[in-house]
Amino acid sequence: MRYNRDDVLAQAHRLVADHGLGALTMRRLGAELGVQPSAIYHHFANKQTLLAAVAEEILVRGRRARTATHDDWTGRLREVCAELRDAMLACTDGADIVATVWAFGMGVRAPADELEAILRATGVGDELALVGSRTLLHYVFGHTFEEQTAIQAISAGAVERELDSLPDFWTGLDVVIDGLRSRVEAAVRA
Amino acid sequence: MRYNRDDVLAQAHRLVADHGLGALTMRRLGAELGVQPSAIYHHFANKQTLLAAVAEEILVRGRRARTATHDDWTGRLREVCAELRDAMLACTDGADIVATVWAFGMGVRAPADELEAILRATGVGDELALVGSRTLLHYVFGHTFEEQTAIQAISAGAVERELDSLPDFWTGLDVVIDGLRSRVEAAVRA
Repeated sequence: MRYNRDDVLAQAHRLVADHGLGALTMRRLGAELGVQPSAIYHHFANKQTLLAAVAEEILVRGRRARTATHDDWTGRLREVCAELRDAMLACTDGADIVATVWAFGMGVRAPADELEAILRATGVGDELALVGSRTLLHYVFGHTFEEQTAIQAISAGAVERELDSLPDFWTGLDVVIDGLRSRVEAAVRA
Repeated sequence: MRYNRDDVLAQAHRLVADHGLGALTMRRLGAELGVQPSAIYHHFANKQTLLAAVAEEILVRGRRARTATHDDWTGRLREVCAELRDAMLACTDGADIVATVWAFGMGVRAPADELEAILRATGVGDELALVGSRTLLHYVFGHTFEEQTAIQAISAGAVERELDSLPDFWTGLDVVIDGLRSRVEAAVRA
């Protein structure tokens, strides 16, 4: 049985979603598909390339149509950040995987590019648009990594902790956006 | 040869610093110390407890005396955030380890508590002091995880990426602090 790239990627995503990042090895993926690891290397040159494709798949599956109702830039930033968070939460170890591939510089650029474009359209300047996009991304990665790691560890019975403090995603996001707002307003005044 | 808790912890920290988080297993730690894994379980009930102690050790080794020169709260926030980042960068996989133990709710509370106390002293109110502390923490975790993962992967020859975009830690931190500043000023006026 021959598998094309999409088949291999779908199985890799399923493996991670069901068993976590630790289960994603070329050997195990080959066993699940009933092929030699070499058949996987035909589509993905190495483990990093496969991981990057899984991360991209996590974002693609979480993609939502943009609402046209946000006439201000802060609502559009919130929409992109919420989509990224939800996409990562929807797959076991999703935050770890997407943040790792982002750090590798191997893809998952869509949310960062979209945040940057929204900020640039405010007239805030290229440098702040870039740093602002990265700051939002780091906040979302940091918050979602905590949220997902806690949820998974509690669900596995590995730790005891209350989740009370975790539903503060939106408040924290608004703090970051307020920090950007003061710079956007200063740029617009200038 | 009997080892006390400090000896076992020092060896666990060395193992992680030299070989990364993946090398930290009870079996390998026992082999390095020349003891049975049961001798380690005597001091650390399970892998999570050991990991929590290593994370705490990473923070302890990075602790610096507070400068008395910061007479404003934003300088004090920056000092705590910089100390946390540097402590995590000083140990292989430090950001991953500290953020994971934080998510488990198993310790490494010092930076969060210090940030919260600095914010509470501004008169901003308990809830914003808590969320503000967590938002700073999530930003520092997110940024440092990217920075460290990129540095380690480049150094291992695993990925090719430019580090040009990474020295934006301070600009992003100032964005978050500016978002807190507007709330602090509103609280002080009220």
